[in-house]
Amino acid sequence: MELLFLGTGAGVPAKERNVSAIALQLLEERGATWLFDCGEATQHQILHTSIRPRRIENIFITHLHGDHIFGLPGLLGSRSFQGGDTPLVVYGPKGIQSFIETALTVSSTHIKYKLHVVEIDEGVIFEDERFMVIAKRLDHGMLSYGFRVVEKDLPGTLLVDKLQQLGIRPGPIYQQIKLGKTVELDDGTVIDGRDFVGPPQKGRIVTILGDTRYCEASIELAQEADVLIHEATFGARDGELAYDYYHSTTVQAAEVAKRAGAKKLILTHISSRYQGAMCDELLNEAKAIFPNVELARDFASFSVPRKK
Amino acid sequence: MELLFLGTGAGVPAKERNVSAIALQLLEERGATWLFDCGEATQHQILHTSIRPRRIENIFITHLHGDHIFGLPGLLGSRSFQGGDTPLVVYGPKGIQSFIETALTVSSTHIKYKLHVVEIDEGVIFEDERFMVIAKRLDHGMLSYGFRVVEKDLPGTLLVDKLQQLGIRPGPIYQQIKLGKTVELDDGTVIDGRDFVGPPQKGRIVTILGDTRYCEASIELAQEADVLIHEATFGARDGELAYDYYHSTTVQAAEVAKRAGAKKLILTHISSRYQGAMCDELLNEAKAIFPNVELARDFASFSVPRKK
Ligand SMILES: [Zn+2]
Ligand SMILES: [Zn+2]
Repeated sequence: MELLFLGTGAGVPAKERNVSAIALQLLEERGATWLFDCGEATQHQILHTSIRPRRIENIFITHLHGDHIFGLPGLLGSRSFQGGDTPLVVYGPKGIQSFIETALTVSSTHIKYKLHVVEIDEGVIFEDERFMVIAKRLDHGMLSYGFRVVEKDLPGTLLVDKLQQLGIRPGPIYQQIKLGKTVELDDGTVIDGRDFVGPPQKGRIVTILGDTRYCEASIELAQEADVLIHEATFGARDGELAYDYYHSTTVQAAEVAKRAGAKKLILTHISSRYQGAMCDELLNEAKAIFPNVELARDFASFSVPRKK
Repeated sequence: MELLFLGTGAGVPAKERNVSAIALQLLEERGATWLFDCGEATQHQILHTSIRPRRIENIFITHLHGDHIFGLPGLLGSRSFQGGDTPLVVYGPKGIQSFIETALTVSSTHIKYKLHVVEIDEGVIFEDERFMVIAKRLDHGMLSYGFRVVEKDLPGTLLVDKLQQLGIRPGPIYQQIKLGKTVELDDGTVIDGRDFVGPPQKGRIVTILGDTRYCEASIELAQEADVLIHEATFGARDGELAYDYYHSTTVQAAEVAKRAGAKKLILTHISSRYQGAMCDELLNEAKAIFPNVELARDFASFSVPRKK
């Protein structure tokens, strides 16, 4: 599980930072990549990474501002052009369907894979055996969602060595033991499967928020998250600007991380007014409140390690 | 008058060539830039040039394929965000209006300048005292236009030295002479204004074609053009592919230039299958038929000199 930032700027592209897109690489977990937002030229950024568009399985759109969606039609088209043939689902706020449909229809873009667009509400918007994604509204003037990506706990592994020390040979019985059932061996011994299974592996939580002011929904979404990705369009001193434009400051993002008990905070969506050493200042403002914080730059990647 | 290629690739962006966009710089002529097509990330390419989005006055769209229009919403939005406040007109085939409107509406992009979208037919689509643009349908499966940009002839300059040698002093009479009228001097001499005006400066002609198969309309549009920009998606040996996909080969582009009596040919919209030395080969194929030819690369610029 790895996060790869494809665009970390705010509003308009700049040489140093492209507009928003974040890849959550789930290659080990499901052989797939999930994308969060897709600003213009996201497919161009991808050309400089190991991401393969055909592997993109889900795209989650936080909100419909241009710097978060104008790269969608191109990426969807190119994925087909390059031979992607597995289904793709786009999740986003109401309006995303009409945007995608109009762009693809007007341009006669023929998508050869199964494309499904889901206009979401709050709640569980995705769930399978391994993952769940929960959406909640933030505070951005325009409808903007935050996403809590929850990896489900993995059952413990079978303690094969311990079984073999007792002379219990591999066979169908291993399945029963792995499920933690009580089983009777050929010699009449009764064993408790739970004694032969390691502890469950805790799943990880990654919270990725759309543009927002400081709000309670962010804290709920980021509760105990392994990683929280929060916008920090402005520095601490520009709190008024942040409020007026429905954005957050570095210290507000840090407050959210702290109050939520998150383990790590990554700041992104940085206004182009902050350059060079000013970015160190942004980072330090947040660090004073929440020490385990990073400021993303384009192409930065962060692994999300399993809890011990 | 200068041509600056912002994207010279075909279909999908590649590291070496972005999707289509060409800037016609008319800074001396009208303090403005005209854009022809606007593939995704055109605004990103512009960041690496001296083009100022606020100076873009007209955008001409040849056809609605994604690689020619997906950069429009972002560019229109950023032009406003960056303070552009002069009017902008987008000319394109039927459908361009709905694409732009949907993208701007869904994304709540508020354009602060006057944006006018004109869905064009064949014929004169733009005209003022200095320039005229003529559109004609090409052959691309989807409706695709070629544009003939005609700079109008400039009247000749007044031959001041010659007037002063005759002792004719500057004054209101100079205006009459400049217009080529016959005037009577104070001493009764009658002179013909036309004798005191240099030859008119011939205007230039730049022909920029959308994606197309080899067709007669291209030749009409490129008649005696100073520069013809023609797609060359494929090399000479891939003529069948070119035909099947409604594109042209290098030699077809050269044939058009030759038959039209164009002065210079620039090839663009090059498939990413051709790399490095293969591009030299593409150029040579065309050169064998039409010697004054160039193969555009991203950020290449060509000035269009006045005729002597
Ligand atoms: Zn944004
Ligand atoms: Zn094209």
